[in-house]
Amino acid sequence: MPRIAYVNGRYVPHRDATVHIEDRGYQFADGVYEVVALLKGKMIDKARHLDRLERSLEALSLDIPLSRRAMEFVLGQVVRRNRIANGLIYIQVTRGVAPRNHAFPKNAKPSFVVTVRPIPSFDKQAVLAGVKVITAPDIRWKRCDIKTISLLPNAMLKQKAIEAGGFETWMTDDDGYITEGTASNAWIVTKAGELRTRKLGPNILSGITRAAVVDIAKRQGLKLDEHSFTKDDVLDAQEAFLTSATSFVKPVTHIDGQPIGDGKAGDLTTRLLEWYAEFLETGQVENG
Amino acid sequence: MPRIAYVNGRYVPHRDATVHIEDRGYQFADGVYEVVALLKGKMIDKARHLDRLERSLEALSLDIPLSRRAMEFVLGQVVRRNRIANGLIYIQVTRGVAPRNHAFPKNAKPSFVVTVRPIPSFDKQAVLAGVKVITAPDIRWKRCDIKTISLLPNAMLKQKAIEAGGFETWMTDDDGYITEGTASNAWIVTKAGELRTRKLGPNILSGITRAAVVDIAKRQGLKLDEHSFTKDDVLDAQEAFLTSATSFVKPVTHIDGQPIGDGKAGDLTTRLLEWYAEFLETGQVENG
Repeated sequence: MPRIAYVNGRYVPHRDATVHIEDRGYQFADGVYEVVALLKGKMIDKARHLDRLERSLEALSLDIPLSRRAMEFVLGQVVRRNRIANGLIYIQVTRGVAPRNHAFPKNAKPSFVVTVRPIPSFDKQAVLAGVKVITAPDIRWKRCDIKTISLLPNAMLKQKAIEAGGFETWMTDDDGYITEGTASNAWIVTKAGELRTRKLGPNILSGITRAAVVDIAKRQGLKLDEHSFTKDDVLDAQEAFLTSATSFVKPVTHIDGQPIGDGKAGDLTTRLLEWYAEFLETGQVENG
Repeated sequence: MPRIAYVNGRYVPHRDATVHIEDRGYQFADGVYEVVALLKGKMIDKARHLDRLERSLEALSLDIPLSRRAMEFVLGQVVRRNRIANGLIYIQVTRGVAPRNHAFPKNAKPSFVVTVRPIPSFDKQAVLAGVKVITAPDIRWKRCDIKTISLLPNAMLKQKAIEAGGFETWMTDDDGYITEGTASNAWIVTKAGELRTRKLGPNILSGITRAAVVDIAKRQGLKLDEHSFTKDDVLDAQEAFLTSATSFVKPVTHIDGQPIGDGKAGDLTTRLLEWYAEFLETGQVENG
């Protein structure tokens, strides 16, 4: 069975899934996207992802190509046609095809692409192995709250992490505070046991998994401080982790080669992952 | 005769010119481009454009897909097959097709696309009509010296200018200094008759037409100061203009609705356009 992609109204074999060279996504990065985890056939936090997609589209004055219901139908069809239970669903909307010109075209029809690819089923032990991060200046634009496909700096800095033997780059603003990772939000647990992650604003993405962990923290009565931190704060912290739709709650054990805490997955991080796994399983978390 | 585009080794009808949805240009804005003016069958400043393309590719650690000679051959073929004498040649190189993942793929083959479209022949009077600009904060990333397809902020701010009845947005840095236009470099002529344009650095593109005008200014013995200026400096200036491969030397008559000088094309701007037209015609400029 070939992989199937949805491209502008048609379900096509993945290898034939193409867009025109004058699609504004290709020439101007003029589009937005979402990645939704699929576990045991269930789309994790689908509503929050589609809400954010709509917010991103609105921020770019980009007309929503399909109703929410039609979008959900397409997502379901792509999953079904690919017979995937555990995977990543990728959704991309661009401003469509038009003769090249910076200004927005008047009559272009937005492009809408959906794919899904398999991932291993959720494995708590694998996640708990943890990852290493490096730091680098945040060179991105000033609207990182919009989930656009203008991802070149993210790709460059992710590549830098990989080349350094790490998994992710935590980017620092002009004042030395960490904004976020190239594809994840950054967190620490201070020695006082307080959870810290940067407050939402134009320089970070409003992560869906971040929001889920904030919910869990509140429900469990944890101390939560939405506040920026520096690399020194990370080194002074007890634990660190990152969150994303594809990484879930992933312990961060080292930063720029130096261990964080004891250099292993922290206790609170482990518990958060367990609570998050429970949420993945049941869609809710019991009170602590 | 249908329009012909070059896409990854093939000359195809423009309407069939497509790339895969997992081309990194489409998902990550992971690519670079050039626009070269074609006048009376001659590619203007071809060597400088291809030099810059190579510098952009190098900045992204992107392997050059073709030798310079092969690239020039393709450009010539696209022009010839479209039988266009006056046009814009568009060249785009991306990191190629690979399963979606921020980090650079190991074995992707870069994508290479070339198109050309007709433009009216050079019309000095039309250019001299001048244009209006607006100002807006520069929200772009910190490596605007690389000519990448990560153009979403440029498109958003160009759109803002159009909606305000203008032609271009001059972007301002955190200190209020104008960096450049969304697709052009910004210039003024001070009351003392001095030409000013921002010095090259990471926050502006090294414009090819900018370089040609710098050459002309030097050859003509004009006073040239490569230095930033604010909107107040523009309002205090005698003349203003912008340069780009598609706009040539274009007078700027108003900024945010206020006239610059007498609100018409300035004398030095007009002479610069004439010298530039001479350069377009002959490939060189006589000493003044």
